[in-house]
Amino acid sequence: MSVQFLENIDDLLTRLREVYRELHQQPELSMQEHKTAERIEAELAHLDVEVQRIGGTGVVAILRNGTGPTVLARADTDALPVDEQTGLEYASHIEGAMHACGHDMHITTLLGALELLATNTAAWSGTYIAVFQPGEETAQGAQAMVDDGLVDKIPKPDVALAQHVMSTQAGTIGTSAGPVLSAGDSLKITVYGRGAHGSMPHNSVDPVVLASSIVMRLQTIVSRETRPGQFAVVTVGALNAGSKSNIIADRAELLLNLRTYDTAVRENIMAAIERIVRGECQAAGSPKDPEFAYYDQFPLTDNDPDVNAKVTEAFTEFFGAEAVYETEPYTASEDFSRLPNAFGIPYTFWFVGSVAPEKYRKAVESGTVAQDIPANHSPFFAPEIDPTLEIGVQTQVVAALSYLAKE
Amino acid sequence: MSVQFLENIDDLLTRLREVYRELHQQPELSMQEHKTAERIEAELAHLDVEVQRIGGTGVVAILRNGTGPTVLARADTDALPVDEQTGLEYASHIEGAMHACGHDMHITTLLGALELLATNTAAWSGTYIAVFQPGEETAQGAQAMVDDGLVDKIPKPDVALAQHVMSTQAGTIGTSAGPVLSAGDSLKITVYGRGAHGSMPHNSVDPVVLASSIVMRLQTIVSRETRPGQFAVVTVGALNAGSKSNIIADRAELLLNLRTYDTAVRENIMAAIERIVRGECQAAGSPKDPEFAYYDQFPLTDNDPDVNAKVTEAFTEFFGAEAVYETEPYTASEDFSRLPNAFGIPYTFWFVGSVAPEKYRKAVESGTVAQDIPANHSPFFAPEIDPTLEIGVQTQVVAALSYLAKE
Amino acid sequence: MSVQFLENIDDLLTRLREVYRELHQQPELSMQEHKTAERIEAELAHLDVEVQRIGGTGVVAILRNGTGPTVLARADTDALPVDEQTGLEYASHIEGAMHACGHDMHITTLLGALELLATNTAAWSGTYIAVFQPGEETAQGAQAMVDDGLVDKIPKPDVALAQHVMSTQAGTIGTSAGPVLSAGDSLKITVYGRGAHGSMPHNSVDPVVLASSIVMRLQTIVSRETRPGQFAVVTVGALNAGSKSNIIADRAELLLNLRTYDTAVRENIMAAIERIVRGECQAAGSPKDPEFAYYDQFPLTDNDPDVNAKVTEAFTEFFGAEAVYETEPYTASEDFSRLPNAFGIPYTFWFVGSVAPEKYRKAVESGTVAQDIPANHSPFFAPEIDPTLEIGVQTQVVAALSYLAKE
Amino acid sequence: MSVQFLENIDDLLTRLREVYRELHQQPELSMQEHKTAERIEAELAHLDVEVQRIGGTGVVAILRNGTGPTVLARADTDALPVDEQTGLEYASHIEGAMHACGHDMHITTLLGALELLATNTAAWSGTYIAVFQPGEETAQGAQAMVDDGLVDKIPKPDVALAQHVMSTQAGTIGTSAGPVLSAGDSLKITVYGRGAHGSMPHNSVDPVVLASSIVMRLQTIVSRETRPGQFAVVTVGALNAGSKSNIIADRAELLLNLRTYDTAVRENIMAAIERIVRGECQAAGSPKDPEFAYYDQFPLTDNDPDVNAKVTEAFTEFFGAEAVYETEPYTASEDFSRLPNAFGIPYTFWFVGSVAPEKYRKAVESGTVAQDIPANHSPFFAPEIDPTLEIGVQTQVVAALSYLAKE
Repeated sequence: MSVQFLENIDDLLTRLREVYRELHQQPELSMQEHKTAERIEAELAHLDVEVQRIGGTGVVAILRNGTGPTVLARADTDALPVDEQTGLEYASHIEGAMHACGHDMHITTLLGALELLATNTAAWSGTYIAVFQPGEETAQGAQAMVDDGLVDKIPKPDVALAQHVMSTQAGTIGTSAGPVLSAGDSLKITVYGRGAHGSMPHNSVDPVVLASSIVMRLQTIVSRETRPGQFAVVTVGALNAGSKSNIIADRAELLLNLRTYDTAVRENIMAAIERIVRGECQAAGSPKDPEFAYYDQFPLTDNDPDVNAKVTEAFTEFFGAEAVYETEPYTASEDFSRLPNAFGIPYTFWFVGSVAPEKYRKAVESGTVAQDIPANHSPFFAPEIDPTLEIGVQTQVVAALSYLAKE
Repeated sequence: MSVQFLENIDDLLTRLREVYRELHQQPELSMQEHKTAERIEAELAHLDVEVQRIGGTGVVAILRNGTGPTVLARADTDALPVDEQTGLEYASHIEGAMHACGHDMHITTLLGALELLATNTAAWSGTYIAVFQPGEETAQGAQAMVDDGLVDKIPKPDVALAQHVMSTQAGTIGTSAGPVLSAGDSLKITVYGRGAHGSMPHNSVDPVVLASSIVMRLQTIVSRETRPGQFAVVTVGALNAGSKSNIIADRAELLLNLRTYDTAVRENIMAAIERIVRGECQAAGSPKDPEFAYYDQFPLTDNDPDVNAKVTEAFTEFFGAEAVYETEPYTASEDFSRLPNAFGIPYTFWFVGSVAPEKYRKAVESGTVAQDIPANHSPFFAPEIDPTLEIGVQTQVVAALSYLAKE
Repeated sequence: MSVQFLENIDDLLTRLREVYRELHQQPELSMQEHKTAERIEAELAHLDVEVQRIGGTGVVAILRNGTGPTVLARADTDALPVDEQTGLEYASHIEGAMHACGHDMHITTLLGALELLATNTAAWSGTYIAVFQPGEETAQGAQAMVDDGLVDKIPKPDVALAQHVMSTQAGTIGTSAGPVLSAGDSLKITVYGRGAHGSMPHNSVDPVVLASSIVMRLQTIVSRETRPGQFAVVTVGALNAGSKSNIIADRAELLLNLRTYDTAVRENIMAAIERIVRGECQAAGSPKDPEFAYYDQFPLTDNDPDVNAKVTEAFTEFFGAEAVYETEPYTASEDFSRLPNAFGIPYTFWFVGSVAPEKYRKAVESGTVAQDIPANHSPFFAPEIDPTLEIGVQTQVVAALSYLAKE
Repeated sequence: MSVQFLENIDDLLTRLREVYRELHQQPELSMQEHKTAERIEAELAHLDVEVQRIGGTGVVAILRNGTGPTVLARADTDALPVDEQTGLEYASHIEGAMHACGHDMHITTLLGALELLATNTAAWSGTYIAVFQPGEETAQGAQAMVDDGLVDKIPKPDVALAQHVMSTQAGTIGTSAGPVLSAGDSLKITVYGRGAHGSMPHNSVDPVVLASSIVMRLQTIVSRETRPGQFAVVTVGALNAGSKSNIIADRAELLLNLRTYDTAVRENIMAAIERIVRGECQAAGSPKDPEFAYYDQFPLTDNDPDVNAKVTEAFTEFFGAEAVYETEPYTASEDFSRLPNAFGIPYTFWFVGSVAPEKYRKAVESGTVAQDIPANHSPFFAPEIDPTLEIGVQTQVVAALSYLAKE
């Protein structure tokens, strides 16, 4: 394929650096990305693309360029409730909000890719749809776009693509077939006891003991009920019951987080949790049925092998074999897959490094990556603009061209 | 003994009713009983007693009446952080404070007893010391008086007496030798884990699991380590760890309440708790030693058999055998015994009923005492002024006279 | 009452010592007391009593002596599966059997009492029934006698009496009103899992984990569900599951022992055990209902206050106040009460010391009773024949005469 | 390579069928394979090979054929303590022993391979070493051969090969790079309590409770301490404590089985077990240090990628691509790798099917493989002699020739 137009993009990058810095200074929390959406629309105004809002603060730009496949590329746009501590010149101006997961870089590189494709239409043929999706961090945005009629409002893509900036070595790209990000489910469980004075346990059903026994029992879901080697996480992130030493409370609340790479495993875990909690409540003589409320549910990100192979091959050809590695699955979660799943189309999701290579290599050599390299969600997270920005634009275009390039 | 002067006290009672209502309207929280202390001092002004402040809001009145024994009688004076819901005409005027444990009745009856003794000096001989003690509910007041030099500031008593209004049948008096109120100790335990993202338990030391295992293990102190039939309570009233489903916290906090009737049992329990918590922290690989902080510590109330016998006999003689019963020990706690313990003298503590007899009997018959009779600390707790007030004055005087009466 | 005939009984004691030694040499296990029963019958042959077998190896001797009350006195007759290690000249001749609980002394003293009453009929009036009961150690014998028609085969007694030799100071007698020996219940619980290879836990329902969780949960019956200070024991004496490291078994077996002094408490515990086990099996996804099988069930021994008072007064008069003490309840159990319960009559049960006074006092002083004084059931248990034998005869007669003596 | 000589081997197979049936009739337990070793030696007598005993019942045959690589091929020879229930004409003649894991087939196919190579020396060049190893089932045999000087007694091989008959479809061969069989470790843990009568828990340190708490806590090694998705098994196969309901025992015994694919994971688990057990013993106030005794330890079987690739390619060429599949790792364990590890050489281990294809396919289709196809170690395990025997001989030769064949 012809990718010459990817080589001399200094002018574009100069502009994009400015966009990136400004987005970084103006982070907006999930589902409140109003200024961000407006800024994206402003950047799109000078391009020959069809722009529409879908899902409130979601922005979609369609670039039609003759016959051929349709490719959907997605960037997420929301920030995190984190107080930035990077000390960067262009650090967040907003207290309690920071682009600590690189979504500002996602926006910027997708804008860059869109511009390159829009201004080099001779090199490709088909339709390119750039989706600027809100609310990823809370698992709300992709669903909001689907609920707002995404499937009817845009052409059906043949394939969907997404990338994520990680605190790995800049210049490297990690790809993988199959499950690459876990399904994530949060669950609030309320179990009921009977309150009493702390000196009269015999008048109580003690919810602290009940909840503690549940926690111990839940460990067996991973240790005994899940096939060894099968990825599964059941974390009780919070257990709260009672507030005074001498009062036995009447309930306990547990907040669980589940992570899986396999739908059957996920369902088995959910069934096991409910079975265990109900059994423990029965054992305790609990006076009221437990309550289960799921929230913050992220779907599995399960890369299509063929799409992944095609995109990986294109990366290897463009960046060289040494730049592309097969990534281990991450235990984190994403809501991107809700978009392709709504259309029933294959997709792939890859990772782009953002740490200065020397710095990263030193940390690896001294075994101090965890301490020295601020990870995503850290108040110190700070992608190196160069070369991350350039490579991020290139990966978006190269991946798209693997489907859209003229022979 | 001559107790004729206890029979016609209508004028006194008329005045005391007013005092009681006013005290009830102006409750003050523990160690903040400033107006209450002033009111007590005002009531004492017209009596021939020596008055002093000890322990800030503690008031002591000494009534000297020739040779003979010295008797200390104590009333506690603080209210509770409860919003009164009785609907009484004289309900609390103070939001967030209520005399929900009858300490206003304790003050009033001790004032009445003091006046009766002060105005009938011919009937007795010796010294009567009325101690109006603050801060019982938080276990601070008796200690504050002792710390402020109680032992040096008043004559050493031969015996100490105290009574408590209970939601039992008015007109009845419960006495008992030996442990009658438990020792109560609150304990805050902080155990440390290592925080991590909820999807990466292998990077954490999970404090929710650690705390849960501790709770299960603590059960064995009563079930296995304490002699069967020995009174012992180890309640974990609160367990709090974490606040989000997908974040593994770095610590957990447990609030425990201990109740015992025996010093050796209490010490064994304390040692067992520490042993178990340390062992569990070791099992968990906890990165930091656990912390133990005791608070709200109430001493054992352990009635002297001789004092109890003497007082019980006097009650039986004055009120009739049907009015006096041997009470079961209560699991609740008091700080009264710190006063006699500071002097090394014997004491007894008894219970006075406050519920209209008919109402109480009906509740007993229908097995609905728990539902129908608001207990101490309830926002509906409301002693019947009559006959509780009269009987409460008489019990104070009769008990004192069992030591002070002329033959 | 006239008890002169109790004072000079040297000839009787000489004969009884021989009987005791021979019984001690020929112990027989529970419900196999054939030679023992024959020996008792041989001893009774020369007395003017009606003798019958009831319950196989049970022997009953009725001594009628005119009008008056009927008193039943009981001795148990079985030995224990213990290899004697006392080194006594008259140690057990039988391997695997030993009178390690003093039942041989019980037989001998009851024979002595019977002979004294039979030969001193002028001193009393009424009916004396001596019951030599088998199978106490396994809780089978009293039931066997009742099942064999005891109630129809002998006159209905007015009161029943029994005593037990303890490793306390010889010459002292412990009595008590109310519960003096606990109800004891053994319970075998079988819970079911699903077997699998040890490397495939996901194919199993792990019974080791299930049983362990049950054990932890059972602790809460005493620690949380029983009123503090209420006597209750729930011991899991045995937990057995699996036999190889790499095979997950399909079941686990728990053997429980329950001790209570109160019927309601006992029933609450039984209900709680079943509730907990069923709840835990549900939590585990157990494929088969758990099974509960009670065995070795001993009734409560709950001394009638009036009978105890009458007997205690007689002991005090005869032996002096210093010899009689109020005993704490024992946590052990007995099946004696099945006999009076079958008739619906009151009873009392007391304890007779058997350790040489000096030896006992030294052990008390040095705090080494537990180490130095072999307790009942120990292979070193060895009552001092003198004065235990004489006092044991006297207690039986004195207790009987408290009902039967002529004024 | 020239493999024509593998095509017409009917005469050889006729003889081998007889050998197989006779071996199957005469199973010998681990490290007692005396007759088996003699039989192997008898079969080798007519071949031009150097035969020696190593490790007692281990037999090694060296076939030298000029210059070239040296290949070690291993068959294990021991049977299992299982009572055969196949009903086969040639079923085991020995009570309590059965070739239930196909080691008789391993012996026979290796004899066949040796004969084919010995009689077709023109087709290859190098050295072929056939190792008939005893005691695989108890992890003793490979170690015994190493301890007996294997490394010094035979030429150093360049590569080691082994195969195993599985209850999968006959005619298929499963190969895989990397960990293909787990490391397996058994561990006996003894924890100490203090014994007491069941009614006196306060005098005890209850080992049933201690062991139960340990079991619950051990679950967290897999659920919390091991990286999600990392293969790790910690099974408590047996927990045994106490034998009577009313006796609290003084110790408990746990038998654990560990399975891992990674040395670091294995060591972490071992450290965590010890840390947890010691912590729980401290929490319990255990009077004596716990004891840890490892036994039946199997090494990891970790196929060399290059060796596996070479052998797999040869299988694919000879049997066709449809016969060769990439197997999932098995959770079971083997001691084969101790042989190549002793030399420090690479190896691979593969699986050969043994179930009649139609039968297997039907079971797969109806989802009843687990019920209908008796697995290894089952008393019904019965490889189809044809074509298992022929294919097993061929796989051994083909794998060897991938190193030894003349170009």
